[in-house]
Amino acid sequence: MRTEITSLGEFGLIEHLTQNNEIKNASTILSVGDDAAVIDHFGRQTVITTDLLIEGIHFDMMYTPLKHLGYKSVIANISDVYAMNATPTQIVVSIAISNKFSVEALDEFYDGIYAACDKYGVDLVGGDTTTSQRGFVISITAIGEVAPDKYVKRSGAQTNDLICVSGDLGGAFLGLTILEREKKIFEETGAQPDLENQAYIVGRLLKPEARKDVVDYFAAHDIVPTSMIDISDGLSSELLHICKQSEMGCVIYEDKLPINEESKQFAYKLELDPTACALSGGEDYELLFTVPVTDHEKIAANNGFSIIGYITEAADGKQIITRGGNKHELVAQGWNHIK
Amino acid sequence: MRTEITSLGEFGLIEHLTQNNEIKNASTILSVGDDAAVIDHFGRQTVITTDLLIEGIHFDMMYTPLKHLGYKSVIANISDVYAMNATPTQIVVSIAISNKFSVEALDEFYDGIYAACDKYGVDLVGGDTTTSQRGFVISITAIGEVAPDKYVKRSGAQTNDLICVSGDLGGAFLGLTILEREKKIFEETGAQPDLENQAYIVGRLLKPEARKDVVDYFAAHDIVPTSMIDISDGLSSELLHICKQSEMGCVIYEDKLPINEESKQFAYKLELDPTACALSGGEDYELLFTVPVTDHEKIAANNGFSIIGYITEAADGKQIITRGGNKHELVAQGWNHIK
Repeated sequence: MRTEITSLGEFGLIEHLTQNNEIKNASTILSVGDDAAVIDHFGRQTVITTDLLIEGIHFDMMYTPLKHLGYKSVIANISDVYAMNATPTQIVVSIAISNKFSVEALDEFYDGIYAACDKYGVDLVGGDTTTSQRGFVISITAIGEVAPDKYVKRSGAQTNDLICVSGDLGGAFLGLTILEREKKIFEETGAQPDLENQAYIVGRLLKPEARKDVVDYFAAHDIVPTSMIDISDGLSSELLHICKQSEMGCVIYEDKLPINEESKQFAYKLELDPTACALSGGEDYELLFTVPVTDHEKIAANNGFSIIGYITEAADGKQIITRGGNKHELVAQGWNHIK
Repeated sequence: MRTEITSLGEFGLIEHLTQNNEIKNASTILSVGDDAAVIDHFGRQTVITTDLLIEGIHFDMMYTPLKHLGYKSVIANISDVYAMNATPTQIVVSIAISNKFSVEALDEFYDGIYAACDKYGVDLVGGDTTTSQRGFVISITAIGEVAPDKYVKRSGAQTNDLICVSGDLGGAFLGLTILEREKKIFEETGAQPDLENQAYIVGRLLKPEARKDVVDYFAAHDIVPTSMIDISDGLSSELLHICKQSEMGCVIYEDKLPINEESKQFAYKLELDPTACALSGGEDYELLFTVPVTDHEKIAANNGFSIIGYITEAADGKQIITRGGNKHELVAQGWNHIK
């Protein structure tokens, strides 16, 4: 079935897309349907972050199911809220769509939005729906809350702090690589994608999660990281942000980088260096954080964390020590370099 | 001079654009430069609203100076905050730009953003900067604050409430009409635009203001409107929103609609009906609000307000009474209809 968007009109479309929207947070006083939403964060501080996603730049509709796209758009945003040691509470979602979209296609996209909202306890409280001449545009702003002055910036890392990451790295980049490869084969030969045994890395790209559990673990174990950032552009780039804003240096160890076994095997198959994928591959949405050495035991007790190095004086530079024991300067090369 | 955006890189560009960004609100605890901004609204409620603006749909770069575009993008957003009877305090600004933009062009755009922030006491606290394959995309989210439960919804209008508007209507639509006409003439003949004597209506389109003074007047005179909305899509459309969400009807009078003399003269020149322009022309960013009749004196004391009718029971319908005394049903026709 295909329902034309024009059959609903702008306001009808908004009503349609928000008809099953349920409020989960007591702080949500007024939601969709007015000039603005109203939020009550008495006694808590408000965190705000925003992301703009453009078709052809941030996602490829050819291999991104709309439901996954909606889900991931929310995850990318609330991941930034967790990276502040805060809890996301509300989002506003704006989209620009061309006429080629049907109401059913938009429903799929919003199914993904609502699924992420449900999973993370976030309320959708507003947005804007408009036309684009070409391409799908998604803009999401997330609001979160944090106990007064418990938010964690990028700039608080201190000498000797442990550098830690959650989960594993490079998977999303390898997922992207396989999907791009299969897309090219399909365009050239019409052959259907061969994604066998690649479920993990494809899932890392198409259906990432935000690390709410990490922030919960910090709260439960009285850990307040000295600095934190989410890994959306690649570990090197994010760690250099922390070093720059903290005015510090760092040492990390190649053999401590957490890389999933499936990611590693697939990297070898493509003759890519798994370390390069972990350092420069983006979109893993893991958390990179620093803690004082006195928190070592609490961090080591969590299997999901890896301690990959430590913070140094700025004058000592930013270094990675390879498996062979060589020192290299850490540089942010970005995705294109690996390819 | 033309500086390529690629010469700065993404993070360099953000630093460049935000280097002179000053904090105006005590509630702004952490601004640009981290995963998210932090805001402290203890004891006040937070209002949030967002707008997505797409080149070719919402603005035409051919006759919109970039500084004006930046200014207006902020105005369109904070106008929604005022429409909640709230005060805007922070914005986040995301943009997607193609390579054809120079750093100087972006500086002009941000000059407009900062000019609006200065005028309205708003802090720019974050955003996202990305690439587009084609066209300029602007997404702004505004945060505001309001004393607990003093926000004004669209849904509170009561029978016999006075229907009021600030300023005058239809000017922005007529400004758009003249610019579209001159663009067409330029494309066909190369003739330079003839905008003589049209400064008022062109200004209404290109450099609108948000009605902070109206919200200030309400506070100073103990007025709390029963409903309020900003006029971005045209008076008819907005009044129908209030009627629908309040479950009420309305009567307005053609001869009470506030229309500027220059707008009127230009409408006649183009053989357009000034009333249609006032009812269906958008982007005036005036406020439409309802108050109990007991507030009549306070409203009448302000020359900048017009009382254009009153709220009725839903069963009485939504009506406009013409100069000739005829009753018509009020319909939302939108801009295209007038043309």
